[in-house]
Amino acid sequence: MARGDELADVVIQGGQVFSVFTREWLETDVAICDGYVAGLGEYAGREVIHAEGKHVVPGFVDAHMHLESSKLLVDEFARLVLPLGTTAVVADPHEIANVLGTDGVHWLADLCAQVPLDVFFMASSCVPASAFESPRRPLNPGDLEGLLRRRRVIGLAEMMNFPGVIAGDPHELEKLALAATHVDGHAPGVLGKDLQAYAAAGIRSDHECFTAEEGRERLRAGMWVLIREASAARNLAALLPLVEEFGPHRLAFCTDDREPEHIAEEGHVNSMVREAVALGTSPEDALVMATLNPCLWHGLTRLGALAPGYQADVLVLPDLERFEPELVLKAGKPVEEIARVEVPEWVKSTVNIEPVAVNDFQIPWEGGAARVIGLVEGQIVTEALEDEPPVENGSAEPDPARDLLKIAVVERHLSSGRIGLGFVRGFGLEKGAMASTIAHDAHNIVVVGADDGDMARAVQRIAEIGGGIVVVESRGVKAELPLPVAGLLSDAPLAEVVAGSEACVEAARALGCTYPSPFQTMAFLALSVIPALKITDRGLVDVDRFELVPLAVDSQ
Amino acid sequence: MARGDELADVVIQGGQVFSVFTREWLETDVAICDGYVAGLGEYAGREVIHAEGKHVVPGFVDAHMHLESSKLLVDEFARLVLPLGTTAVVADPHEIANVLGTDGVHWLADLCAQVPLDVFFMASSCVPASAFESPRRPLNPGDLEGLLRRRRVIGLAEMMNFPGVIAGDPHELEKLALAATHVDGHAPGVLGKDLQAYAAAGIRSDHECFTAEEGRERLRAGMWVLIREASAARNLAALLPLVEEFGPHRLAFCTDDREPEHIAEEGHVNSMVREAVALGTSPEDALVMATLNPCLWHGLTRLGALAPGYQADVLVLPDLERFEPELVLKAGKPVEEIARVEVPEWVKSTVNIEPVAVNDFQIPWEGGAARVIGLVEGQIVTEALEDEPPVENGSAEPDPARDLLKIAVVERHLSSGRIGLGFVRGFGLEKGAMASTIAHDAHNIVVVGADDGDMARAVQRIAEIGGGIVVVESRGVKAELPLPVAGLLSDAPLAEVVAGSEACVEAARALGCTYPSPFQTMAFLALSVIPALKITDRGLVDVDRFELVPLAVDSQ
Repeated sequence: MARGDELADVVIQGGQVFSVFTREWLETDVAICDGYVAGLGEYAGREVIHAEGKHVVPGFVDAHMHLESSKLLVDEFARLVLPLGTTAVVADPHEIANVLGTDGVHWLADLCAQVPLDVFFMASSCVPASAFESPRRPLNPGDLEGLLRRRRVIGLAEMMNFPGVIAGDPHELEKLALAATHVDGHAPGVLGKDLQAYAAAGIRSDHECFTAEEGRERLRAGMWVLIREASAARNLAALLPLVEEFGPHRLAFCTDDREPEHIAEEGHVNSMVREAVALGTSPEDALVMATLNPCLWHGLTRLGALAPGYQADVLVLPDLERFEPELVLKAGKPVEEIARVEVPEWVKSTVNIEPVAVNDFQIPWEGGAARVIGLVEGQIVTEALEDEPPVENGSAEPDPARDLLKIAVVERHLSSGRIGLGFVRGFGLEKGAMASTIAHDAHNIVVVGADDGDMARAVQRIAEIGGGIVVVESRGVKAELPLPVAGLLSDAPLAEVVAGSEACVEAARALGCTYPSPFQTMAFLALSVIPALKITDRGLVDVDRFELVPLAVDSQ
Repeated sequence: MARGDELADVVIQGGQVFSVFTREWLETDVAICDGYVAGLGEYAGREVIHAEGKHVVPGFVDAHMHLESSKLLVDEFARLVLPLGTTAVVADPHEIANVLGTDGVHWLADLCAQVPLDVFFMASSCVPASAFESPRRPLNPGDLEGLLRRRRVIGLAEMMNFPGVIAGDPHELEKLALAATHVDGHAPGVLGKDLQAYAAAGIRSDHECFTAEEGRERLRAGMWVLIREASAARNLAALLPLVEEFGPHRLAFCTDDREPEHIAEEGHVNSMVREAVALGTSPEDALVMATLNPCLWHGLTRLGALAPGYQADVLVLPDLERFEPELVLKAGKPVEEIARVEVPEWVKSTVNIEPVAVNDFQIPWEGGAARVIGLVEGQIVTEALEDEPPVENGSAEPDPARDLLKIAVVERHLSSGRIGLGFVRGFGLEKGAMASTIAHDAHNIVVVGADDGDMARAVQRIAEIGGGIVVVESRGVKAELPLPVAGLLSDAPLAEVVAGSEACVEAARALGCTYPSPFQTMAFLALSVIPALKITDRGLVDVDRFELVPLAVDSQ
């Protein structure tokens, strides 16, 4: 078919075809054979797609993301993003790995074989994110080695323990050695000699840059900069000056963590291309960062281009402004109905707790100042505050009038009964409680409340529905979003997930919550590697000192 | 050391350090630890190299070459090119593979472990180059699979059988499948749909481009263009417009076949950088094509850059015009004396022929036109001529007065006694004969002469010295260059090889030879994949028809 001796399966005729290699728009046909591009030139085909006046570009590839952030099973995720032009993603499955270990990753990887979206994985390097967190069980180097044997697993995922790497921690270096030089980085704010040490360990990408200066240093250190535009962290605008300065080379787009609402409203990788172009980047440069470049970084040699031998993941775009494809070919075929995947019972029964009661959330207290987690709007870092909680019957109590709420993390994998207790400021709840099994990275149950009894009820309800998000007032469930798969994913369609999510936010508002995205933020309060004060089932973590600290400021 | 907590082994201070990633000159130190770059920044070291006012760049990497073309053993080759700044080469060992099979390749690969130059290999895909040639034995897919198991062997070497690939020959496709997408191409003049078919087979580079138009088509087809400047084929000037048009991306420098005299006089990869800059390419673009880019194409993730974790192959250049390093660090150390390698007997006894006599070169002839190989000056393609040789005693004779000489190829691996006979025009010999075991690709003995007896003597002498180049007049040896290793390589130092080579050219001149580089050209007359008329031990090959043809024009 490439020789033109035989009719191609499909030919896209008359369009402007983007060459990611030369950044030209070529007036050429694209001949497709057996799911691959056979050739560019003048071809005839058994089926002809007319693309006169249209732009024909390769499918978009997401350089780094977590499927679990979409709260969707991969079939529903594919139904959502394929029409937006995302034809491949490189995922770090560390959320499900914390809950279900390598079994969960293998299950997810098997599931991905059933959907037309290409899903590649990086083996999750940091399960748990730190010793202060309690996943079902940690992944050790042997586990990682096993995952890396799968063809779909192409490297080691974001090495979040950057202090460990910089310090030369032999355990981290042992993991790095497993994947040679294909390791994604995660080094927020790391600069200067620390960055040199991190890169010298063989880590060649980072998606945590917030400034062009950070990006510049990473490029000079031989690292790829994966430009992230997640639901929370949005770095695109800040990093586009790098494109102007150095061209699009060694820069690639990624979405990291996108909520389902965000994707439904704004789009996926295509929204980054759209925004970059709106901000003045040339469409050609933006497209290269969304197509070829993620594939160059990840060594996906058959994806990211329209050239002979490349998989025929093709978008037909009516314009170079909206980047909303009017046709998506995945491996040469239009995306048709995607079958629903089967979900086995064992991935659904993951909330294992001892029954909890009101007294489990009581904090014996003799008075004095307590450490308080302070939210910072629009960010996942927190402040380490101090305040004196009211004392009743020998217990420290929340004080909604001063926006001083209780927070707890309940270990939920092994029924250990372990509960970390503390205070948080910023949500603004006047009553009730809200709880969730989305609580990075170990995904124990995080619960915030103005009332111990409602906190207990919320946690119990979470256990009853097998995980999810729950809002409780006066012992009654006001709204809930069941996430029965690992306590992270719904098995329902997008619309239902979005509706459930919105109902929970509404119910939180009704409790007085003033914080914009309360559950998204609550989910990061247990992540012990983001400064400054966090909480896990083991207690409060001072992330800057990287140690557990008591609730009482004066103790010790 | 990267953290700066400990003194680095070596620090290069005060220079302008080239970032291949951002194409900037950075005012920074380079800290070296254990042969690798630990970091860029301000560092102190146990040893300090002062580079004030100098340019500090990564070592040069040759993207495609044949070690055997230098006629030197790899230790002597390393002595020659390391001071010129070449710190790594990617070699196709197909010359030695034709003579010594995989054994020879393994021996050469083992030898390379003893020299400080980094030598990587591509597994030779086309041994023999065609079915018309007689190597010791062909390499089959099992042989290639075995070679590819070696760490030093990183892909499949130039797929010279481009007609076979384009035609979908299952034997060639089987070989391609062994190396996934890391296959070097060789597709002279292939354009249009044929090129699409060649690229669709997974071949992603070509070093045979002669024109920018060919290069442009290859880039658009997703292929790397390896810009070649060999002793014979010189394509640099013709291809530099691609750099201006598209930037240096997916372009890399290679030397392919360089004679020892050429390297000694002009240089190695550094001469390409020098010439490119002289022709108007920016030093930064030229350097990228000589450092990072060959490594990107070949997946050499620790070479080609000065950044943390990269091997400390460093050149200190006094200027950006001559590109003659005043200091070369290989893996962080100055290149010191390189020990002579040991050469075992078995690689030296490779000329196995039946004794030849004058009558072996006689051609029974009844008159009429014969096919004649016509040299084309400065090229390795030939013309298919016709002429009537004089007939004496029933034999066709040479006619030096009309520059009609005899040419023969004597099978020399398995003593088969097979000799191909024909005529050649262009050398201008008036008497005597010249013979060589350098006769691409099978490296049988090629001999050209004005006298059958001298031809026989030359071949006998070749056998006596175990291979090499010989010039004979009136049964006496006038000059010779022994190449005892596989009949391809000398075990002598460069100066001796150059002197021997020059003596042979002088002796050929004394016989009346008018052709500029007679032995270099004679070496390609047996290469059955370069048009138009060639000769092997099996007879004349019409390369355009790709079949053996009889000497007599009128027969059949």
